[in-house]
Parts: sequence; structure tokens; C-alpha cells
Amino acid sequence: MRMYDLIMKKRSGSTLNTEEINYMISEYTAGSIPDYQMSAMMMAIYFNGMTETETADLTMAMAHSGDMLDLSAIEGVKVDKHSTGGVGDKTSIALAPMVAACGVKIAKMSGRGLGHTGGTIDKLESFSGFSTGITSEHFINQVNEIGISIMGQTLDLAPADKKLYALRDVTATVDNMSLIASSIMSKKLASGADAIVLDVKTGSGAFMKKEEDAFALAKEMVELGKHAGRKMAAIVSDMDQPLGFAVGNALEVKEAIETLNGNGPSDFVELCMTLGTQMILAGGMAENAAQATAMLKDVIEDGTALDKLAAFMEAQGGDASAVYDTSLLPKASIIEEIASEKEGYVEKIICDEIGICSLILGGGRETKESEIDLAVGLVLHKKVGDYVKKGESLATIHANDLNKLAQAKERFLKAYSFSNKPVERNKFIKGILQ
Amino acid sequence: MRMYDLIMKKRSGSTLNTEEINYMISEYTAGSIPDYQMSAMMMAIYFNGMTETETADLTMAMAHSGDMLDLSAIEGVKVDKHSTGGVGDKTSIALAPMVAACGVKIAKMSGRGLGHTGGTIDKLESFSGFSTGITSEHFINQVNEIGISIMGQTLDLAPADKKLYALRDVTATVDNMSLIASSIMSKKLASGADAIVLDVKTGSGAFMKKEEDAFALAKEMVELGKHAGRKMAAIVSDMDQPLGFAVGNALEVKEAIETLNGNGPSDFVELCMTLGTQMILAGGMAENAAQATAMLKDVIEDGTALDKLAAFMEAQGGDASAVYDTSLLPKASIIEEIASEKEGYVEKIICDEIGICSLILGGGRETKESEIDLAVGLVLHKKVGDYVKKGESLATIHANDLNKLAQAKERFLKAYSFSNKPVERNKFIKGILQ
Repeated sequence: MRMYDLIMKKRSGSTLNTEEINYMISEYTAGSIPDYQMSAMMMAIYFNGMTETETADLTMAMAHSGDMLDLSAIEGVKVDKHSTGGVGDKTSIALAPMVAACGVKIAKMSGRGLGHTGGTIDKLESFSGFSTGITSEHFINQVNEIGISIMGQTLDLAPADKKLYALRDVTATVDNMSLIASSIMSKKLASGADAIVLDVKTGSGAFMKKEEDAFALAKEMVELGKHAGRKMAAIVSDMDQPLGFAVGNALEVKEAIETLNGNGPSDFVELCMTLGTQMILAGGMAENAAQATAMLKDVIEDGTALDKLAAFMEAQGGDASAVYDTSLLPKASIIEEIASEKEGYVEKIICDEIGICSLILGGGRETKESEIDLAVGLVLHKKVGDYVKKGESLATIHANDLNKLAQAKERFLKAYSFSNKPVERNKFIKGILQ
Repeated sequence: MRMYDLIMKKRSGSTLNTEEINYMISEYTAGSIPDYQMSAMMMAIYFNGMTETETADLTMAMAHSGDMLDLSAIEGVKVDKHSTGGVGDKTSIALAPMVAACGVKIAKMSGRGLGHTGGTIDKLESFSGFSTGITSEHFINQVNEIGISIMGQTLDLAPADKKLYALRDVTATVDNMSLIASSIMSKKLASGADAIVLDVKTGSGAFMKKEEDAFALAKEMVELGKHAGRKMAAIVSDMDQPLGFAVGNALEVKEAIETLNGNGPSDFVELCMTLGTQMILAGGMAENAAQATAMLKDVIEDGTALDKLAAFMEAQGGDASAVYDTSLLPKASIIEEIASEKEGYVEKIICDEIGICSLILGGGRETKESEIDLAVGLVLHKKVGDYVKKGESLATIHANDLNKLAQAKERFLKAYSFSNKPVERNKFIKGILQ
């Protein structure tokens, strides 16, 4: 078999078979197919697409290109959640304890994020002492005992995807539905969960700008997961403005804790309840959605979800007292209000710009080596549809450096636009697929 | 400027401007744009095409990517000829002396061929002592004195094309009209001739299988040359079967000499007369086609074309006596007839297979390091439309190795197919473009 012939085949609109896709991925991972052939193939796929079977074959080939996480020593149904990402997305921090408190097993191996704001692990490090550097034995035992654990990435999961994504990223071949779906799902399949619930974001701050594309991606990933024998569900949710109010690591943790205390922002609460319901159903812990939703309400009301977060922290060295007293979380030295320079209804908030403000303040990683400032960030007071008077505060900014604060503030003000007429709010949950 | 943005632009169907194409080619030649980005770009061009202006910009950028041959020290109009290649294409060996005898200046810098049969330089080395290792001064003086010289490739002409072609060759991005046209024309423009006459082959043995594609390529190249201020002409000729009868280096030289003696195969004579007429017109040595053709007939009849080949050989160290006595050319040790196993009209000769037979015998280069056996090859006796009886000779095979002979013979017989009914011959010259 020769890669040249496979490129030619795909270029001319033919279909690659399982053997050909396996060959392509294993040889590319091993380094015997060069990048320049693979990037030509990716561009041919961009133009000619892939069939459902090709996409499934590619996903399986990438999932099996490295280690596969074995969660079989954990009793019960292991449920994983994946979000396509967005600004202010602190969902896992509230959601994982909520569903774990309902009996669902959460066992995640995670790497660190790169970009606008920190990843989940960075956010959790707001709890002094928290560490993901635990042994596999500790990890397994902890999930069996308290239902939840996150471990650092000690295995090499889906290396083919890692290599291929890096190549697509520099050759303008990222935005193809089949390639996006197979990239996400290959990692999820290698991560070993029995059931996977996906949160596909849509809107200006999401990778999928159009709602129809988000639904198409969600559908494709659900099919890929089912094809691989996993229980699947996906929701499509709004990312036309930041999620909740808080953007920045410790600030988001605080908002997640408020949510576990029953005082979360309405969009964020709706998201956690919707995803949580699907995770409980996928985990077989409830008979129907109404029952699952009721369970989630209960664990918030009786405090067991909050206690679950505390138990999780304690089990991995984190300061559990901060769960009950958020003033123990990292705090910035400068806290200022950002006064609106205009008056009117908030018409639009450029989502990515808010993420970049947090990055400028020090809350995200520009390179792999960057140190994150956990304390900094923003707490919005006004979101789309809200009426704002001139001089009224749009947000509270948390900073540790006056220069960075000034830069972020200037950029923040430009991210908001206003209208004289009332602005309708987007529907937050666009749909659920199973 | 970033290559990523240029790929994205081309991928989305936009047009690259002159500055962008110059950037892309100069940075790629310098090695600062990696192959994997360029191959993605080539595939995007394959799918979205290039405008006339983009193609012209690409051609000029590649032509200027390295040295440009300066022929200004040669008096008169310098005319170059280029063929898109085929089996048995010994055209330059007869044509160059013919037009030089009519006063056209032929000054070529050539590399060596790779593939089915040897290139022109390999063929000319059938004359013992002939060398292209001459100085620039020798080269210029020789053209001024006798009107013809071929020099080895001492300059780095169109290195961007060399690098890009090698990449396209392994990424299935060769067969795009604009890329083919710009590749050929960039080298021709860097080669410095004032006028260029192109021989675009069409048919099963040609790169352009379809006649309409050959015409499109011819038209595109003529436009590119005119855009760069050169005088241009192109013909489209048949390559559905080998050209002439001889395939193999010394055998082809012998056939070219026979043609200069007035005894050439009809298709080959027609080709030389048609191309020669265009070269004489482009060189301004005749007022119209009829006059140019008459001049060519004269130089064959009075022997001056043959004498020109002898003078050319002598000037570059070759044994000129072999021009007048072809028995001095390299001879194979085994000469056998290939008897037809079937009876009927020759319907088809798979052109490439005949080329491969010569390669098997040792007449071509499989790798850059291969040594060519100049003596071996085939002389066909039957071409498309001819009637053949069983046992009658289809061709004479010239070999130096019995095993290779057996292999080539078996393959040769499979390349012929027959019909019970008379077979119409293809029109040989399909058209002329100016």
C-alpha cells in the first residue's frame, strides 16, 4: 500500500476502506508517512468529505493509535462529559460532584489546556494543595470509594490525533465536520468511559458558529460513539456570550461553588441540569429525565453535591475548607468596577474578547510554559438583553498588575455593543440528541 | 504575511495576488515555508484552480527563483523547442540541425532525463566522445559560429519549480493544468530563448490523454510565454503509439540520421517539418509557412542539415564520422525478431509499455545513478493500422542480456492488440496554435 495512491483515491472522490485508513494512521503515527503527504490528504478530505464508514474507521484507528485507558476495575457505569469549549466554561467543577452525588462514576484522565482561560485542572488548582499527580491505584480506589477522580495524563491517549491535529492546525484543514468529530471522539474512546455526554457549543464564541453545524457535529459524534459501543447523548448549547458571569480560574471555581449552593447564574444552572440529567440517564441511575432532574435538585438542596466536591478535594490533597469558605480561594490585589461608557440594551458581547481579557490579566496560558495567575479575571454584571445606564458597572475586574488591568479594561469595553431597543435573548439549550 | 492565511484564502475560492504568490514561492524556495503547508496549498489549487493572472504570477515567480540564462551574447533570434515527452521522441536530434541549417540559433542548457528512455543528452552520447561539459564561452561562441550548442546544466534554473514538482509528484497534485503549464514555462523562461515552440503530445502514451486537455495546456503555455514577452507557438501531436519506429538511444539517433538523409518514418518527418516551420517563423528566417517548409526540404536534400549535425558533434568532441556511417554507433550483441503470435490489423500499441521494454533492456534510468545501455532497444515494423500475419516480425529487439531480452519480449507482445477489421489511423498533427 502506498500513501500516494490513497491521496489519489480520495482526491478523485473514491472511498478509503478500513485497511487503507488503518495503514494511513498507523504509518503516520510511526513517522513513515511524511507530513506533506498527510496534509495533502487532509485537504483532499476537506474538499471531498468522508463517508460515515470512513469517519468511523478514522476515529477507531486514531483511538487505537496509542494507549487505551482501562477503567474496568471501577464498578458501575463510568460516564464522561466533553465540551467543545468556550469562555467561562466551568461546567465540570459543578457538574461532576452533582452527578457523582447521584451515583454516577466520574473517572477522567486530563491534560492541561492552552488558550483563553485555563482548563479544568488549572481551575481546580485554585484549591491549595490539589494535585492530579496520583497513582493509577489511587485513582481507581478513589472512584470506587467516592465516585470521582481526575488523574494527570500519564498515558499516551490517541497520539495519532495529537499529531494530526497539530498538522491540520497549520494547513487550514481544521474545519471539516468528519475530521473534527473523529478528532474529539478518538480521544474520548481512548479515555475508556462506558457512556459519553457531549456539550456542543454554538454561537460567535464557539468553534461552530452556526447552529445547524453544531447539530450536525453533535449527530456525527453520537453516531461515532454508538458505533464504538458506547452509550451516547449530546446537547447543543449557546456560546454567543460567556457562560455564567465569572471568567478566570478561581472566580469560576467560586461561581461553581455558588451553583452547588443553589445560587448559580440561570444559564449555567440550566446547562448543569441538562447535562447532568443526560449523564444520570446514561449511567442508568434514573428511569427517566424527570427523575434524574429531581435527583440533581435534591443533591444541591441537601448539600451532598457540595460535600462531594469537598470529598474529591480532600482525596487529592486539596484544601476542602475552601469549598465551604470561598474567601480562602486565591484573591487578586486590585479589584475594580468597569463603568459603562454608553447607555442602552446590551446587544452583543464578543465572547472571545472576554476570554482574551482574562488571558491579558494572566489567567490563561500563551505558551505551554506560561504560569497561570489563578486569582485574576472578570465577573460580568450585564449580559445580552440587560439594560445599562452610562457609568453603571458592566463587570468587576480582578487584577494583580495595573498595566494589564488597563489593557484588559480597554479591550473589555470594546467587546460590548449596545442597542436603543430591547434585545431578545438567545434560547440557551438548543436541543438534545441521543 | 502568513502561509496559513494564503492556504485558507485559496481553499475558500479566493484569488492570490502577485505579492502573495511571490512571497509563497520565494519563502518556499528558501525553505522557510515547510513542505506540509505547500502540499496543502497545491491540493487546494487542484480543487479550486488558478486564474490566468495567478498562473502567470506563479510562472514568473518560479522563473525568477534562481539563475536566468543570459543568451544576449548570441546574435540573432534564439529559438527553443520543448516537448511534453513520449516514447521514441528523438525529435531534437533531427530538428535542431535542420533549423540551425536554416539560420535559427539553438542554444540549450539541459539536464539528464529519468524514466522510460534516455533524454536528448543521453541519446547524443551515442556519438563517442560527445560532451556537454563545455564552458559558457565555448557555448556562446559555438552558437555564434555554427548555430547550435547544448551545454550541461551549470546554472540553477527555476529551483522553485524543481522543489515544487518533486513535492507535487508525491502528493498527487501533478495533474492540474495551471500547475503543469507554469512548471514547464518557468523553466523555459529561465532558459533565456527569445522564442519558444512547444510540442504538446496527446493520447495514451502522453501525459495529456485527452486531445481537448492537450489543446488547453498548449493554449495556456502560449499565453504564459506571450505574457513574458516571448514569441510563442505550439503544436498538438499524436502520442497514441510510439513516435517513428525506433525506441532506444543509439537506435533513435540512427533513425534521426536517416531522417536527415531523407529516409525518416512518415509521422516523424511530419513532426519535424511542422515544428521546424514554426521555429523558422518564430526565428524570423522566413516570411510564411510555405517558405519555411521549403527551406527545411532544401537543407535535407542538399545535405546541409546532416552536415550541421556533424559540425555540432565535432564542436563538442563527438565522433562526427558516425553521422555519415551509422554502423559506428553503439551496437547490441543480440539482435532478434519478435514474431507476432496473432494475425490481424494492429488496433492499439500501449505506448508506455514499449518505453518500459526499452527500460527493461537497460535503455533508461530507473534511478539517477543508473548507467544507460545506449545500444539496446526496439525497432518496430508494425504500427497501428498495419496488417500482420502470424509469425511475421512485429519488431527487431536489440539486447545485451538474454534474461532481459526474454522479459522485454514477453511484455512487448502484450502491448499489441489486434482487430479483424481495418483500423483507421489517428490524424498525426492535431493542430497548431500561435
